[in-house]
Amino acid sequence: MYLDNSATTKPCDKAIENINNVLLNNWGNPSSLHTLGMYAENEMNDSRKVIASLIGAVPQEIFFTSGATEANNISILCSAKKLKKQGKRIVTSAIEHHSVLDTVKSLEAEGFEVVYIKPDSDGNISEEALSRAITPDTVLVSLMLVNNEVGSVLPVSKAKAIMKNVCPRAILHCDAVQAVGKMPINVNSLGVDLLTASAHKLHGPKGIGFLYKNKNLHLPPLTFGGGQEKDMRPGTESVPLISGFKGAVQSIGNINANLEYLNQLHAFAVEKLSELEFVSINSPENCCPYILNISVNGFRSETLLHFLESKNIFVSSGSACAKGKGSYVLAAMGKSADIIDSALRISFCKHNKEEDILLLCDALKEAVGRLKKR
Amino acid sequence: MYLDNSATTKPCDKAIENINNVLLNNWGNPSSLHTLGMYAENEMNDSRKVIASLIGAVPQEIFFTSGATEANNISILCSAKKLKKQGKRIVTSAIEHHSVLDTVKSLEAEGFEVVYIKPDSDGNISEEALSRAITPDTVLVSLMLVNNEVGSVLPVSKAKAIMKNVCPRAILHCDAVQAVGKMPINVNSLGVDLLTASAHKLHGPKGIGFLYKNKNLHLPPLTFGGGQEKDMRPGTESVPLISGFKGAVQSIGNINANLEYLNQLHAFAVEKLSELEFVSINSPENCCPYILNISVNGFRSETLLHFLESKNIFVSSGSACAKGKGSYVLAAMGKSADIIDSALRISFCKHNKEEDILLLCDALKEAVGRLKKR
Repeated sequence: MYLDNSATTKPCDKAIENINNVLLNNWGNPSSLHTLGMYAENEMNDSRKVIASLIGAVPQEIFFTSGATEANNISILCSAKKLKKQGKRIVTSAIEHHSVLDTVKSLEAEGFEVVYIKPDSDGNISEEALSRAITPDTVLVSLMLVNNEVGSVLPVSKAKAIMKNVCPRAILHCDAVQAVGKMPINVNSLGVDLLTASAHKLHGPKGIGFLYKNKNLHLPPLTFGGGQEKDMRPGTESVPLISGFKGAVQSIGNINANLEYLNQLHAFAVEKLSELEFVSINSPENCCPYILNISVNGFRSETLLHFLESKNIFVSSGSACAKGKGSYVLAAMGKSADIIDSALRISFCKHNKEEDILLLCDALKEAVGRLKKR
Repeated sequence: MYLDNSATTKPCDKAIENINNVLLNNWGNPSSLHTLGMYAENEMNDSRKVIASLIGAVPQEIFFTSGATEANNISILCSAKKLKKQGKRIVTSAIEHHSVLDTVKSLEAEGFEVVYIKPDSDGNISEEALSRAITPDTVLVSLMLVNNEVGSVLPVSKAKAIMKNVCPRAILHCDAVQAVGKMPINVNSLGVDLLTASAHKLHGPKGIGFLYKNKNLHLPPLTFGGGQEKDMRPGTESVPLISGFKGAVQSIGNINANLEYLNQLHAFAVEKLSELEFVSINSPENCCPYILNISVNGFRSETLLHFLESKNIFVSSGSACAKGKGSYVLAAMGKSADIIDSALRISFCKHNKEEDILLLCDALKEAVGRLKKR
């Protein structure tokens, strides 16, 4: 039973079918001038259209990358390159993914001042905190849409409203990797200039993602090459994975219906897990229902994780990238060392069922009965 | 009949099989702490081992990237970042791929002086030209192993010999995208510090390549994230494509036997095409036999390319990335505008046969008879 869907998801049939179709029948180089190139280019642009419409963008605003990490790096480093003469203040949150946190940190060495907004104890970022952080000399605001460890939804559109008054020329970047395909997103109503995602978080393949860049925003490139993706991201495009990404997007179904189902599943999980006296819920009440962070008081995350996998239940001790380090997200929320050391991230997809949660509860009860407290 | 193998190649069965196996049965996130993560990591590291042995490297010297363009950018930009205080001279050739040429050019704005060594009229770079260009203040030398348009083999190991005497602390980078899997390569005897390649040039999938980095060379990273690839190239690894890359490498067979076959095929092509009085051979005699550049005097490349594709013969008018612009490689060789405007690149793989060349010759004869001279 796989409950680690925020780390990665099982590729869906349509994604695999598309990948195979390209590998077998449409393997030309999209830059080639002959028809084999044209067919590959057509498939790529059809995918671009499907993906653009998922977030209310137009196709020329979608740039394929190897994933959200690369897209976040391009967003932040190229925005900084563009605006470095206009100001040096970057505003972000303390609970961003490492591909944002470590990238803005690298800019500190170049003279940028980075403000890391702390969440409240629930993991939420308040509008007030945003207002305090965003000042007239701010050139870049980077906020994730959904936090990858606790699921809190960040006030991205509110940041834009503040920026319009305070620093209208600043760029708003949004790492939406845990939100795309899970929540309805419209880049225009969200007000973002840049938004990023990865296919493998929504039942597509690993190795492909996109950068949405508003058509009115011009950025210098991070890397250089043969002109692909309008020079924003050179290198022969991974047509098989791009087509697989399209297949995954086309298999999402009704986002609102899925979200409604997940809301029920999440509520059920909170209810059942709350009945276990040794469990604390770390996710905020109003979080994105695809993620639920808990702590199993008195037991180490990693010990629990391995006990659960012996029962064929797969969860995470934090984000997959952190590889077992204590959560800086829970630390920023002011959680105690006990809570941090015993945290588990349970993350769902639309294929999970209430039954999975009951099995998880049973396994946790067994774990608490059998494992030694630390 | 596909004669555009330097643009891209048809994925082989084993590559496709491996990709499917990962998508269906091994789709965990290699950073996950549970067994699904471990299985994915094992597959990735097994691939790393197979790919390392192809070039005489050790596994920890192989860093997976989205392709050679990204790997070339990392090589050049990170070397420059590391060495900018030690010197400002970069030596490269005038016939590199855009992912090298445009990347070193971007460094000129940061105060680097770039020397672009011109080839002789055959497309070869002489040892003398290298000796003149490489000076004690040189910090980076970037030379491709095989030119992608005419197939000339560049004197990479000779560059290293000169560097040892003249600028022993300088870094040697080699774009080996047209050579890996086609010629025997040993990174140690070649003397390179950095070497790059793409899977899709050797019957693997598009979207995956590698950076070889000598284990004694430390470079600052270009991008930031969750620590993957020992921080040199963060982002969830594309395990399906990495496994597909392994499958392609395992399907190469005997590189020397393939090369011997290609040498015969290339010689046959030169012989038959030379019999056509309207054809000039642009590739040097001692070139890598996978590539043959010709000009069809008096006819435009693009017109010929489209005529040939109407006969189901696929060639290129230059590199795929150039998308129809006149060749800067032939220009650097001092070729006339007539030769440049009528150039065709024919590029082989081990599956091509003498019969393909006879069909190409017939089609060219028909083209010359039927098409209007420009």
